[in-house]
Amino acid sequence: MMNDLSVVAESIKRCQRPIICGHVMPDGDSLGSVLALGLGLHLLGKQVTMASSDPLPELYSFLPGINEMIVGEVSPEAFDLLIVVDCSVPDRLGSALLPLYESGLTTVVLDHHVNDQPFGDFNYVRSSAAATGEIIMDLLEALGIPLNTDLAINLYTAIVTDTGSFRYENTTSETHRRVARLLEYDIPVARLSNLIFSEQPISQIRLLEAVLSTLEVSENGQLATISLSRQTQESVGANDQQIEGMINYARNIQNVEVAMFFRELDEQRIKISFRSKYYIDVNLFAKKFGGGGHVRASGCTVEGTLSEVKDRVVKEAQGLFRGC
Amino acid sequence: MMNDLSVVAESIKRCQRPIICGHVMPDGDSLGSVLALGLGLHLLGKQVTMASSDPLPELYSFLPGINEMIVGEVSPEAFDLLIVVDCSVPDRLGSALLPLYESGLTTVVLDHHVNDQPFGDFNYVRSSAAATGEIIMDLLEALGIPLNTDLAINLYTAIVTDTGSFRYENTTSETHRRVARLLEYDIPVARLSNLIFSEQPISQIRLLEAVLSTLEVSENGQLATISLSRQTQESVGANDQQIEGMINYARNIQNVEVAMFFRELDEQRIKISFRSKYYIDVNLFAKKFGGGGHVRASGCTVEGTLSEVKDRVVKEAQGLFRGC
Repeated sequence: MMNDLSVVAESIKRCQRPIICGHVMPDGDSLGSVLALGLGLHLLGKQVTMASSDPLPELYSFLPGINEMIVGEVSPEAFDLLIVVDCSVPDRLGSALLPLYESGLTTVVLDHHVNDQPFGDFNYVRSSAAATGEIIMDLLEALGIPLNTDLAINLYTAIVTDTGSFRYENTTSETHRRVARLLEYDIPVARLSNLIFSEQPISQIRLLEAVLSTLEVSENGQLATISLSRQTQESVGANDQQIEGMINYARNIQNVEVAMFFRELDEQRIKISFRSKYYIDVNLFAKKFGGGGHVRASGCTVEGTLSEVKDRVVKEAQGLFRGC
Repeated sequence: MMNDLSVVAESIKRCQRPIICGHVMPDGDSLGSVLALGLGLHLLGKQVTMASSDPLPELYSFLPGINEMIVGEVSPEAFDLLIVVDCSVPDRLGSALLPLYESGLTTVVLDHHVNDQPFGDFNYVRSSAAATGEIIMDLLEALGIPLNTDLAINLYTAIVTDTGSFRYENTTSETHRRVARLLEYDIPVARLSNLIFSEQPISQIRLLEAVLSTLEVSENGQLATISLSRQTQESVGANDQQIEGMINYARNIQNVEVAMFFRELDEQRIKISFRSKYYIDVNLFAKKFGGGGHVRASGCTVEGTLSEVKDRVVKEAQGLFRGC
């Protein structure tokens, strides 16, 4: 593997008809990176195609250039270079676009996921970058493409989404330095932040209401449990991703150390998620029920009804806080 | 008024026993600014006192130096300079510390609120600064005090809280440039963000549950209403600030343009808050009920029972969406 941005830039300079693709279930970093690079290469006079296997989330309809993106299959013959952003393995291109790679098109990979074996002919992988958008920003500079507002909005969106608005551990001094340069352009920070972070579908609010109505906090204040029946889940129409996020409401309660989320898979199987904040090893705890995971986030599936399983697990959890 | 940071820096260099104070109901910017300047002046060999009229929120107990802060009254005789940060008027010092100013102590004011008439003998006010912390950072530089991790954590907290994690309109290129410099020190970004933005008191979660259980969305999806009875309010034990924030849950629902929050003050008086997102003038709407405010945020108080008032106002609101 090579890992030299100037070599990658040279390979891109030589192409005439590049296609740029991100990953399945596109997020802000994937879309912002595709679009910033695509709009940038357009300025260099390239005949650029931007594509996604999966539909584009409506949330990101504000991104400049997004209406030019193709969703679904394309024919490999039309292109002389495949540029893949934010994907650590070819499968992440999705079934509609994977044939591009399999056709043998010369491939450039630009990514920030840890990856010792990137799959391109030319690769640039920097895992210290908080977002692939940071890498695209450097690449545009290496290509001599000056920033403008449209590019800046796409790059800003890439970085702000993958850092959770500069709150995650991946946020570095370099991240802020790059964003400082982007904000020299006319970026409506407050409006974008509202669109990206504040808006919630009604199904998520209904789910939240249903889940919070089951909230119980132990007498010592350190254990919070929530639960969700199959019936409620169906009635609110929430998706898996929305459901998984609910445990954070229990975890984020002041003084709570351990949060548990009991979710009915069917009448005799309960999926449980565990989270801890500072000192309790929930990986060890999940193992007692045949599950596992990490020290601060784990899970298991236990046979029984919702109330049976909850009683059993909460009882077992009392031992966790002894002496605390 | 003068507005020259070097003049302010000179006045501070000359003092020996400064007292540094922020505002009542101290927030992250006020505390972080007091502490960064206090710890900094300590490095210059000054005999520094840091004080607050109001108790310090437990949330901020992680701030380096916070245990050295005095809460409550102090005697003016002990000091040769009063430095007031993040306060636009003397009253914001709070009743315990206002006598310091009234005693005639030479006063320095450092602030980022819009203010044509700052009250100090030496003033530096820059309303383009996202946080007073940005000004303190520049002042430390003007005083020749090098940054260290403790100073950086206080300054970072000041800036991150007053910009809502870089999401508010006040966030500029300069904000990110300063934070890039702060992150060169050992700041646990993810841990601080969790402490500052994620943790919620149980009362707030109980309040959220109660309020969401009243959520109604109109047939066209554009109007969301929530309400809170006096009884529920008392049973969950939430404070005014927590209650006021609840309208955001209604406002942030996808496709909702107008949110209304009906809150029972007593059996015959209902306080209503209105929010709109993009195009409806809720200031105009509130005026119909004797209230007012801004185009996107307004309110009024209406006589009647909770259900009567809600019916009347929602009916009136139907006119807002005609033709949309």
